[in-house]
Amino acid sequence: MLKMENTSRPLDTLNAARHKSVMVDLKNGLRYVGKLKAFDIHINVVLDDAEEHKDGQALRKLGTVFIRGDTITILSPA
Amino acid sequence: MLKMENTSRPLDTLNAARHKSVMVDLKNGLRYVGKLKAFDIHINVVLDDAEEHKDGQALRKLGTVFIRGDTITILSPA
Amino acid sequence: MLKMENTSRPLDTLNAARHKSVMVDLKNGLRYVGKLKAFDIHINVVLDDAEEHKDGQALRKLGTVFIRGDTITILSPA
Amino acid sequence: MLKMENTSRPLDTLNAARHKSVMVDLKNGLRYVGKLKAFDIHINVVLDDAEEHKDGQALRKLGTVFIRGDTITILSPA
Amino acid sequence: MLKMENTSRPLDTLNAARHKSVMVDLKNGLRYVGKLKAFDIHINVVLDDAEEHKDGQALRKLGTVFIRGDTITILSPA
Amino acid sequence: MLKMENTSRPLDTLNAARHKSVMVDLKNGLRYVGKLKAFDIHINVVLDDAEEHKDGQALRKLGTVFIRGDTITILSPA
Amino acid sequence: MLKMENTSRPLDTLNAARHKSVMVDLKNGLRYVGKLKAFDIHINVVLDDAEEHKDGQALRKLGTVFIRGDTITILSPA
Repeated sequence: MLKMENTSRPLDTLNAARHKSVMVDLKNGLRYVGKLKAFDIHINVVLDDAEEHKDGQALRKLGTVFIRGDTITILSPA
Repeated sequence: MLKMENTSRPLDTLNAARHKSVMVDLKNGLRYVGKLKAFDIHINVVLDDAEEHKDGQALRKLGTVFIRGDTITILSPA
Repeated sequence: MLKMENTSRPLDTLNAARHKSVMVDLKNGLRYVGKLKAFDIHINVVLDDAEEHKDGQALRKLGTVFIRGDTITILSPA
Repeated sequence: MLKMENTSRPLDTLNAARHKSVMVDLKNGLRYVGKLKAFDIHINVVLDDAEEHKDGQALRKLGTVFIRGDTITILSPA
Repeated sequence: MLKMENTSRPLDTLNAARHKSVMVDLKNGLRYVGKLKAFDIHINVVLDDAEEHKDGQALRKLGTVFIRGDTITILSPA
Repeated sequence: MLKMENTSRPLDTLNAARHKSVMVDLKNGLRYVGKLKAFDIHINVVLDDAEEHKDGQALRKLGTVFIRGDTITILSPA
Repeated sequence: MLKMENTSRPLDTLNAARHKSVMVDLKNGLRYVGKLKAFDIHINVVLDDAEEHKDGQALRKLGTVFIRGDTITILSPA
């Protein structure tokens, strides 16, 4: 396998975002914004204080939300 | 692998929701609301006292329902 | 892994439904109603005395039907 | 794992159908009717003396046909 | 696992078709007709002297073509 | 497993095309034409001097392009 | 397996692009342009100083973005 620098793995980026505000975009066009509480290698993600958005509008507050990894397109600081 | 705190794995969040009321949204736009009875690492989920919803309307009562994990987008406290 | 109570795994719910009447909804909108004869860890399912339904109408009687797991959304007592 | 009776695995049902006439429905709406010659754990299937059907009409005779498992929704005695 | 006769595995059918003319239908509606040169357990397939067809019309000649297995629905003698 | 002749594996065909001009068709209808630089068992592919085509028209020049395997339908000499 | 030259693996191409500007096209039609910070064998990718584009227009600046590999079609130097 390739030698990689320790700080350059994608999951390190998720780890650095823990406890911070992130947005998660799904394949179905919905977006979830909240504090990143947990993730795993499948990119299953848990957000706290989450809101669901569509087309730039907040639809509803969700509290804690578990998002299945295979439905995610991108994750980025909010 | 990354060192993670024990309480920050996504499945811990599901475990904490056991026996509580949750909603589960599917890729096909349907929502199931019920008491979380069981789940596994594929995020296959079983709800008790479940109702099926579409566009915010309750469609039918289902009693117990097994939901295949790969059809789920999110799971959240109801 | 998480410690789970023995009776709280999703496949236990399927096992308890064996020989009983269930409905199985597919991603393509079809529903199969019959007696649960067999299933496996992929959620491949076999029903006996099965009927195919669409939009609430029975379309045809199928006798025994093998349903490939990855096409299933939910399974519930009929 | 669950203890299961030997005769209640889904692949047993396929095995019992070997050399018999079956219909196989695909995700794309096509149906193949023929004699079940072979299958494997991926549910890849081979039919002999097969016909392709769409919307209840026979489209063409195919002789032997190999069907990739992940494209199948159901398989049932014809 | 099930005891199966040696000649009844799906890949045996592909092996018997080697060097013969076959048609391969894809999920996107295209069909490739050519001489079966190679295949593997993922059902990746290579055809020689291949032609691409759509709606029953030959679109173009391709010479050798590699077809990714997960895009295939059926394979049958041409 | 099946005994296969050494020269009849699909990846051998890709290997023979290395450093030659190929076209790669994707599930989304785009085509990439370029010199095959690299591939792996997932059919991830790298082309050099690549051009993107749609409906027979060149859209843009890309230089080197990495194409994710699961998005590919076919690969053929250009 | 095939003998391959060391410099001809697809991931080597990604490694050579590290810290350089790349564009990443997704299955949903969105494009992300930024500096390649990290990737892994699933082709999960992290970009720094990223912008989201649609139909050739920049939609928004994202800073750091994690892109799930299975949603990617191509990656190319920007």
